[in-house]
Order: sequence, then C-alpha cells, then structure tokens
Amino acid sequence: MTAVGDIYPQDRVTLREVGLRDGLQLVKSFPSTEAKRQWIKAEYAAGVRNFEVGSFLPAAKFPQFADVLEMIATVDALPGAHPVALVLNMRGAQNALASGVAELSCVLSATEAHSQANAHRSRDVAIEDLRQICALRDASAHRPLVSVGISMAFGCSLDGAVDPDEVVRLAERAFEAGADSVGLADTVGFAGPKQVHDLTARVVRLAGAAPVLVHLHDTRGMGIANAAAALDAGTRALDGSLGGLGGCPFAPGATGNVVFEDLVFLCESKGFATGIDIDRLVAVRAIVQAAMPDETLYGALARAGLPRRLAGAAA
Amino acid sequence: MTAVGDIYPQDRVTLREVGLRDGLQLVKSFPSTEAKRQWIKAEYAAGVRNFEVGSFLPAAKFPQFADVLEMIATVDALPGAHPVALVLNMRGAQNALASGVAELSCVLSATEAHSQANAHRSRDVAIEDLRQICALRDASAHRPLVSVGISMAFGCSLDGAVDPDEVVRLAERAFEAGADSVGLADTVGFAGPKQVHDLTARVVRLAGAAPVLVHLHDTRGMGIANAAAALDAGTRALDGSLGGLGGCPFAPGATGNVVFEDLVFLCESKGFATGIDIDRLVAVRAIVQAAMPDETLYGALARAGLPRRLAGAAA
Repeated sequence: MTAVGDIYPQDRVTLREVGLRDGLQLVKSFPSTEAKRQWIKAEYAAGVRNFEVGSFLPAAKFPQFADVLEMIATVDALPGAHPVALVLNMRGAQNALASGVAELSCVLSATEAHSQANAHRSRDVAIEDLRQICALRDASAHRPLVSVGISMAFGCSLDGAVDPDEVVRLAERAFEAGADSVGLADTVGFAGPKQVHDLTARVVRLAGAAPVLVHLHDTRGMGIANAAAALDAGTRALDGSLGGLGGCPFAPGATGNVVFEDLVFLCESKGFATGIDIDRLVAVRAIVQAAMPDETLYGALARAGLPRRLAGAAA
Repeated sequence: MTAVGDIYPQDRVTLREVGLRDGLQLVKSFPSTEAKRQWIKAEYAAGVRNFEVGSFLPAAKFPQFADVLEMIATVDALPGAHPVALVLNMRGAQNALASGVAELSCVLSATEAHSQANAHRSRDVAIEDLRQICALRDASAHRPLVSVGISMAFGCSLDGAVDPDEVVRLAERAFEAGADSVGLADTVGFAGPKQVHDLTARVVRLAGAAPVLVHLHDTRGMGIANAAAALDAGTRALDGSLGGLGGCPFAPGATGNVVFEDLVFLCESKGFATGIDIDRLVAVRAIVQAAMPDETLYGALARAGLPRRLAGAAA
C-alpha cells in the first residue's frame, strides 16, 4: 500500500518530471527505451524523485508509451523514486492497476465541451469512471494512489473562460469519488498568476492534507510566474519538463510545460528546498537532445547558468 | 515644470519601453533614426506612453545614441507621451538639462565594486554627483524629473550577493539628494520573486508617493515572475523591451530585458489596466526586426497569441 506522504513528502516541494509523458505526447520521433532509461537515471542522480513515465494508451496509436511497463520498472528500481502513469479510460486503469505502478494519474476536463471532445464522455461519466477506478484501487493488493488532474482548469481551448466555481465543484466531486489528490492543469497556457493563485488557494483549502499538484504550461510566458503564484497559494507539488518539452505542434515555437530547470531555480530562490542539483539537471539535456535531435529545448538557466552567488553552492 | 503624476499617473501601471536605450546598449548594428521613429510611433499607436529614448554619452563611443535629441523630439511630438534619457555623468546631465527632456535617468550602483568598475567613481561620489544634478534641475527653467535606478540591486556580477539593507540606504540617500523617483534594477538577472518582493516592498514604503520603477532582466527565466512579485509589492512602474531586446553578448541566447508584450499580458491578467493593445504591440516587432535583422526577438505572446477569451477583447 502506497502512502501519500511517501510520494508527496510534507517537508519539501515535490517537482515532477513529466517530459517522459506530456513531453512526448505529440512528438513524431521519440527516444528509445534505453535513452529514456538514461534520462530517468541521470535526473535521479541530479535529485529528481518523481517521474510521470508514460500513459496506458493503445500502443498502436501511441507507440511512444509502449514501453510504459519498462519505464515503471526503471523508476521502481531507484530507491526513493516514484513513477506515475497516465490513465484515460477504464481499460487503461485496469492495465495500470495490474502493472503495480504506485500512482495512477486520471484526468477530468473542466468544461463539458472539452470532456466530450477529448475523452468522448461527459464530466458526470468521467466522475463515475473515477469512482470505479477508486473502487478497483481499494480492492487491489498494492493500493496505488489515484491522482486527478483537472485539465483546462484556467481556461479552455474550446470554451474560453472557465468558471472557477465549477472547477472547485469538480475538485470536491473528485475527492468525494475517492481521489487521493486533485490537481489543476493550465493545459493550454491561458492563465495568469492572479488566477492561478486564487483558484489554487481554494483547492488547497478544500484538499486539506491531500496534495494539490499544479501543472502549468509556458505557452504565453507566464509559466514561472504562475508557479510562483501556486507556491504562494500553498501548493507544494508542481509539474515541469526538462527543456520545456511538450510544445504544441499547432503553435510552433511555443514552449510546452514549464521548464524543469527554471522551476527548480524558482523554488530554491523562494526558499523551498528541492533536493535537486540544477547544474546536474541541466547536464541531462544533452541526453534528451541526443535522443530527439529535432526537438527544441527551452530554458534560461541552461543558457545563463546559475548566478554568481549560487554557482558551486549547490550540493 | 514636469509633475511626477504626469509621467507616472497614479491610476494605472506605467510600462516603459527601454528597448531604444537598454535594448541598443550593446548591439553592433542598430536601427536608423527613421526606423526608431517608426518604432516609437507604432508603439505609441498601440498605447505605449513612456519611452527611454537614449543616453547622453559620447556619440563617438555610442553612435546608437547620437540621435538622442531627435528621439526626444519624436516622443515630445506625441500627445501624452514621455521621453526619458539616461545620464551617466555630469557632462551628460548638463547636456540632458539643456535638451529640455522631461526626465533624466541616473544610475547608482548597489555595490562599491560595480560603482568603481562601471562608473569609475565611489558610491559616495555618485551621490554627490546626483545632488549636483538635482541642484541644476532646481535651477533650470523646465525642471525635469530626476529618476535614479539602483543597478545590481538584487545581486552583482562582481560581488555576488548584495545586502538589501545597503540598497535601502542608497535609496534613502538618493531621495535625500533630491531624486524624484528611485528604482531597482536586476541588471544581470540574478533575482527571484521573493527577493524582488521583499526589497521592492521596502523601497515602496520608503518612497511614499514617489514612483519606484523596477527594471528586470529575464536572463534566468524569472523576469515575468519577478514583475508579478514587484506588482504585488506595490510598484506601479516597470521597464520592458519589445521582444526582450538587450541580451548580453557574453551570454548568447540569454534574453535581456523583460519582454514588453508579455509584461503587458501579465499586468492585464492581474487586473492592472495598461492602456496598451497587445496585438498592436506585437505587430511592432516587424519594424524592429526589419531594422535589426540579426537580433533575436523573444517573447511568448508573439508566438502563441492571446488566449481565446481575450482575443479580440482588447481595445
């Protein structure tokens, strides 16, 4: 049985590398299983402990996640490291539960339009699916965490503005259905820091001791500012991807997820220990770039280096 | 006589375009006078009202600012627009006062080492120079504003960490010497948002009704997050440059000033009206890019466009 505090310790910020899943969601050419292993191991050596390693989706449609079981095994072999795998339907949930992965990540859409377009189900059906997944979890031997991310929580590519009250109600329903954590995703990078602060604070209050994971994209340059706002609002768990992998092919040049290295710098600059050595983390970019030579890696720390007073000071 | 409230109105955030000065400080090829005029006029049409237009430095060494008088005249011809010119020594101050420009921008270094290396004078001498400039201002017919920026306020390229108490003392001395406003500059992009918030809040308190202009660089990806923190701390005046012009030639790929377009988006998203139309501002990049084809323009809004709910909503 997995305890929430094992994966999301209370005494530090949890920064999760989602490049191996969200970062590969839309790429045409992707790293070999061996390259992914090197990527994970090198980030682990830099201090990263939380990895979204893939998705339980049909391998024929998403060959980049066909090795999800091997990725889970790779992370499980590293002491203190935690894999999480994305699950988008009941079939995927069953496979994930059978895999023994310690954490399942499920998705609810903030808007009805996106829920239908993305998952071909209403939000009500998505909540019922979540309830079933939680029941399967309760019946399982290893009882993994079931985490829920609310996509389009700060704005929807279809509906535009999203009512924060609706997001809070969805979060309540997710907890009520049995979720161990509920997160907020700015899936298309619409949010500004005030909005992130206000909604995150409400969900943190609602969540009590449960983690609230905030997943941000840097599409409009607000990623780091939004992460700062989320930390100010009380979250202690954030997603990022090395080099900002995960850009949208429909917005060329738009970075994807918040740049992991810059996120670490932000957290450390705000006094939150991350346990991650930024210089060693930056060095992992060479592995990713070699495995995906056509992908652009973003990030300011990688270009500019640590400030003078911090250079060499990291463990 | 210039009133502070004319240039820095109390009822909105003042966003100052510094691309025509800080953005051109280190470039090898720079726009023609006519291209700069187009740049200013196009940004004015987008709603920008505050322009740092150049520097009173020897034209032989800084030919990019040889046309500073024409730039001042260009801005002065636009109703409600305000030029400011940088002044680094007494000779420059005399020329600036003679020019009739409505605002002089003077610089103090936060550290003794940087003051000596950059301006070949101690901080004490710099304060005395400032006092003289303010006396000349008081004796002038048009009484321009004298604004002071404290460079390296959040960390120094030579000394590393900077004691915030020393920065606050320098700000006090600058006001005592007669400055109309005192600003804080993260000259080399060392700062994180907590540091920006804490120091800005102290100087805002000290400044009372006087503006506190915060000048940030995005070298380590914290520019927008730091701007958000500065706003939270009470400043209502920020610098930026279109496309983030002003990168350091010693850190290739490192962006320079905070990207102006993204800064406007940040302010609007936080509920601060700027009076600036983001789409029209983004369109000005074409003028700047044509004038400086070798310069890389940065910025997320320019790539991704406004979010769905905002697109078309701006004036």
